[in-house]
Amino acid sequence: MLPFARVAIVGLGLIGSSVARAVRQTMPTVRLTGHDADPDVRAAAVALELCDDVADQAGAAVTDADLVILCVPVGAIGAVAAELAADLAEGVVVTDVGSCKASVARALAEVLPGVAIVPAHPVAGTERSGPEAGFATLFQGRWCILTPTEGSPPEAVERVAAFWGRMGAEVELMDPDHHDRVLAVTSHLPHLIAYTIVGTASDLEEVTRSEVIKYSAGGFRDFTRIAASDPVMWRDVFLSNREAVLDMLGRFSEDLSALSRAIRWGDGDALEELFTRTRAIRRAVVEQGQDDAREDFGRSHP
Amino acid sequence: MLPFARVAIVGLGLIGSSVARAVRQTMPTVRLTGHDADPDVRAAAVALELCDDVADQAGAAVTDADLVILCVPVGAIGAVAAELAADLAEGVVVTDVGSCKASVARALAEVLPGVAIVPAHPVAGTERSGPEAGFATLFQGRWCILTPTEGSPPEAVERVAAFWGRMGAEVELMDPDHHDRVLAVTSHLPHLIAYTIVGTASDLEEVTRSEVIKYSAGGFRDFTRIAASDPVMWRDVFLSNREAVLDMLGRFSEDLSALSRAIRWGDGDALEELFTRTRAIRRAVVEQGQDDAREDFGRSHP
Repeated sequence: MLPFARVAIVGLGLIGSSVARAVRQTMPTVRLTGHDADPDVRAAAVALELCDDVADQAGAAVTDADLVILCVPVGAIGAVAAELAADLAEGVVVTDVGSCKASVARALAEVLPGVAIVPAHPVAGTERSGPEAGFATLFQGRWCILTPTEGSPPEAVERVAAFWGRMGAEVELMDPDHHDRVLAVTSHLPHLIAYTIVGTASDLEEVTRSEVIKYSAGGFRDFTRIAASDPVMWRDVFLSNREAVLDMLGRFSEDLSALSRAIRWGDGDALEELFTRTRAIRRAVVEQGQDDAREDFGRSHP
Repeated sequence: MLPFARVAIVGLGLIGSSVARAVRQTMPTVRLTGHDADPDVRAAAVALELCDDVADQAGAAVTDADLVILCVPVGAIGAVAAELAADLAEGVVVTDVGSCKASVARALAEVLPGVAIVPAHPVAGTERSGPEAGFATLFQGRWCILTPTEGSPPEAVERVAAFWGRMGAEVELMDPDHHDRVLAVTSHLPHLIAYTIVGTASDLEEVTRSEVIKYSAGGFRDFTRIAASDPVMWRDVFLSNREAVLDMLGRFSEDLSALSRAIRWGDGDALEELFTRTRAIRRAVVEQGQDDAREDFGRSHP
């Protein structure tokens, strides 16, 4: 049985358009409507045939839906939900795909009182943005974390879980605050650091930007991928998950100071001990299917 | 014409064994000898048929060679060169593949007076180590930086350049100190940061290691690859290029503090401005052929 029959996707970027493609592939009889605030994105969505119908107004896209998925930057979720609140159907379930969950749960509860809300976060993505960047298998084998609140009806949680399971994701339930701390370390801090180092490297006087790019295969290029992620999405993530991000950043800075002290004092044993320990983490990531087992991420070699 | 006819490789790990394979493929008539201090590595090299002859002593491997390539951790280069100095043939050229060049040039000049020395650094590698990890195309399309000193004969520099060109690398000449500053930012700092964040993430109380691994697809997994690199090699790099690494680390820390202040004060414009700028760097890295143009590094999606 299909968990939902009429799904509306609001926001048709990388994630929204991937959901659309995954629904088409795994639940082909679902009636799919969509909306994006950007007319160019709507035109692209029509050309790509992502949905049965792409509406110019968010309200028109959701009016008949039994599931509404908000795929917009987390800072915009409250405003977008408020805009379409009056058009929601009786019995609808509203969910999202945002990378922070406590702030999203608060924003949705405020503007959609009485509505069944199940905040969700599929831990998946690429460095690309926009409706052309999505693909149907983006969520396969990845985790989707649901963070139901006290007001989330258990039956709605089960249906949203089944929906993500259909698209190939593994589903986990988590407390919203714990989610925000876990993701602060596995996703937000890595992005923050990648953005910073790419900025640092491109702003040196004595090493030119063209040298940085030319010799990036020594490690730097790995960071540029993450630092190419959507600017508005990530601006909102850092502002919405501020406390957890700053806390993790503080711990990281402490560790970095300790390592820099070890380098200054020539403490090779401390360096080697850490570098041996981190190698084991990589092995676990690969063993648990969370990254490509092929060397160098499986990058193509001529 | 072949730049060298008898090549000896000392150190048969990822890089040394890749050089052996590349020589076999691109200069098949070269007589290839090899040595590694580790008997298990020597046995593997024999089983893999990496060289015409694998010697138990470094001296025996180099005695007849017109090119000797030292492929050992930078901290060991001086001692290894001293060990084989007495066995070098008249007219030999000695080179290396180390990631720091000023300290290597000093160490080699000290223990090999009067020998033609051409320090080199192929900017290429993967997270794997050992003789099984190498492959013949590792250097194709990558840069190899030569840092000749005042004592390097121009003719020897030309031959080493031709040797790397044969294996598919682009060759560039650079001053050793400038090399060490460029690589501090494009390679050493990224590794230091990746090692640190993977260490930080695996040492939290409130987020378990298994959660970190499970949700690593949010960005963290990109860092684990680099943090799986060879511990001894990287220990030596940080100790040998200490000043430049600590200087770049200082600049990075300043930028990180500025970004953390922007998050604390909710300065979304500053965040978005940086994140937009870093996106352009990624584009340049891909356009200049220094990374896979396919999204997500070309990782396989089911």
